[in-house]
Amino acid sequence: MGMLDETKQKIFRETGADALFLETDFLRRYLTNFYSTDGYVILTADKCVFVADLRYFEAAEKALRGTDVETVEGSYPRALECLKGHRSLGVPFPFLSLSRAEELRAEGFSLVDCMPALKKAMEYKSERELNLIQRACDIAEDAFLSLLPDIKEGMEEREVAALLEYRMRALGASGTSFETIVAFGANSSVPHHETGNTPLRFGDIVLIDFGCKAEGYCTDCTRTFLFGDDGKHGEFKAAYAEVLKAHELVKEKVTAGMTGREADEVARASLREKGLDKYFTHSLGHGIGLQIHEFPTLSPRGEEILQDGMVFSDEPGVYLAGQYGVRIEDSCYMQGGRVHSFMTKTTRDLIIL
Amino acid sequence: MGMLDETKQKIFRETGADALFLETDFLRRYLTNFYSTDGYVILTADKCVFVADLRYFEAAEKALRGTDVETVEGSYPRALECLKGHRSLGVPFPFLSLSRAEELRAEGFSLVDCMPALKKAMEYKSERELNLIQRACDIAEDAFLSLLPDIKEGMEEREVAALLEYRMRALGASGTSFETIVAFGANSSVPHHETGNTPLRFGDIVLIDFGCKAEGYCTDCTRTFLFGDDGKHGEFKAAYAEVLKAHELVKEKVTAGMTGREADEVARASLREKGLDKYFTHSLGHGIGLQIHEFPTLSPRGEEILQDGMVFSDEPGVYLAGQYGVRIEDSCYMQGGRVHSFMTKTTRDLIIL
Repeated sequence: MGMLDETKQKIFRETGADALFLETDFLRRYLTNFYSTDGYVILTADKCVFVADLRYFEAAEKALRGTDVETVEGSYPRALECLKGHRSLGVPFPFLSLSRAEELRAEGFSLVDCMPALKKAMEYKSERELNLIQRACDIAEDAFLSLLPDIKEGMEEREVAALLEYRMRALGASGTSFETIVAFGANSSVPHHETGNTPLRFGDIVLIDFGCKAEGYCTDCTRTFLFGDDGKHGEFKAAYAEVLKAHELVKEKVTAGMTGREADEVARASLREKGLDKYFTHSLGHGIGLQIHEFPTLSPRGEEILQDGMVFSDEPGVYLAGQYGVRIEDSCYMQGGRVHSFMTKTTRDLIIL
Repeated sequence: MGMLDETKQKIFRETGADALFLETDFLRRYLTNFYSTDGYVILTADKCVFVADLRYFEAAEKALRGTDVETVEGSYPRALECLKGHRSLGVPFPFLSLSRAEELRAEGFSLVDCMPALKKAMEYKSERELNLIQRACDIAEDAFLSLLPDIKEGMEEREVAALLEYRMRALGASGTSFETIVAFGANSSVPHHETGNTPLRFGDIVLIDFGCKAEGYCTDCTRTFLFGDDGKHGEFKAAYAEVLKAHELVKEKVTAGMTGREADEVARASLREKGLDKYFTHSLGHGIGLQIHEFPTLSPRGEEILQDGMVFSDEPGVYLAGQYGVRIEDSCYMQGGRVHSFMTKTTRDLIIL
């Protein structure tokens, strides 16, 4: 077993407990790069142990050989044994169940929240993490491009969603990042429309918000386009142009050192010039990683400072209830002090199918 | 707003708190039949309130009109206002985060676990719930049948999984119940094999464990078959016959009033006669509902008594490490004191493609 890597040392130090105890899927995966639906990670000053039951032990041992993580066979009682001699435990308060908290307290442990330290570490993506997010974005874009020629009049929203998800899976995604949103026509004016049975008609606006995962890492993308042009979309097209402008301004003007609030304001101010800010009813963006919603937050209340290595969405939108909606979203990263998009294959200009 | 239905009254009474406070997706859905990714349900002696933010308020109000659930607009602070005047709160300990628990305690509430009462109610499915599970099973079986002719030599496990999931979605499923397991050849000997890149070869065993959802309600099904017969599968076929015998015996012999342990023993005893019980390395079955693993548990440690209205899997299996595996699984329900299968479209006899 190798020496603990710097990230683990830092998380341990900043938590300030005798040991960290993690049983949440994505946190286990973050610390070990190994995926399982069960198991426990225990991090102490000089050691990281993954406790896996028989179903996962062999695969875990193979995957973790030569890393700084040791594999031990067993389930919860075995994990408790590994914790013997420790008094204070770092656990993720937002993800630990109250049942487990009470069990651990009954064992005599005092609990400390390790989520602030984990959150801080997870905001900065490693080269490996950036590469995985890039892979997920490539898959999502390729799937979207392969979908476009197959969209036909009469198809239902849920059929389009199912087909896109299938294409992402077939291209190698391990799953979707969230339930794909497909909204036709006026449904596009509901930012979180529930994909349903609405059939596609000529001239409809189509809004698709989608994403997939590569080794657990998420991507998030939205494209809005027209299924044919019935000549009635003047106002929509004008709004589209403004949302696109706001979207691109974020990439041009947002720099490292700005807060999430300032980044949000770049897009919001641009829409305000045309009186469209009142229809921009959500935040500009959110961090993306092993979870689809992470930190930093790019919103009027986002006080975190954007820095190199952070990954977040750039997704301004404008929604006129019952009429139309536009959202244009890329997954982006900060590098060399500037915003770069992971999405290089699909156009952000208005597509008319 | 109507009077509280009997189920809600019973859950409230059995929890014995001033109010229940629920923010877990599937529990909100259970009490309201309305799906959202956010919101709060508050149940008191004479009232059930759903607190939904702007994204969901309109849809919630429409869906809940005329039911015993009232819709209120707002988010967490609004939910806290609704709880004013109450002292003890019923919350689901296994699903409430420690963060939230500490917030609620800081507000002066004492917390009581409402999960025992919810679990007890959720074990008994209503007519509506049984119909939804039947619908999900029909979709899963139709998708499986449409998949069979499209399985070709050289396809990878993950391609078959993606195609099956797509067919389920296209037939109306709102999603999968769990990550589809597709295992070719010796991979079938790993009960929870991770679907991967193994290509299909002539003569391979194919094990597919799959399920989908209808309005949140899950189904669970496994079929094991041969992709061509290379004449080398004598031992596998003998094991298949024994697993099938055990599977069918459960449907014949298990009756209301038996415990989960006794039901498990029906299958286990049958396999024991042929010395195969040592290869039956998991439980016979688990409850199925809004979650893929619910109560009752049909295992050597299952002390719950099986009753009319319960839904569970019947899934004996035999696994010879590195050689082959067989699992035959139906989603079933208890009615008139007997076990009935939801699966009526696919055969359980050995298919040779």
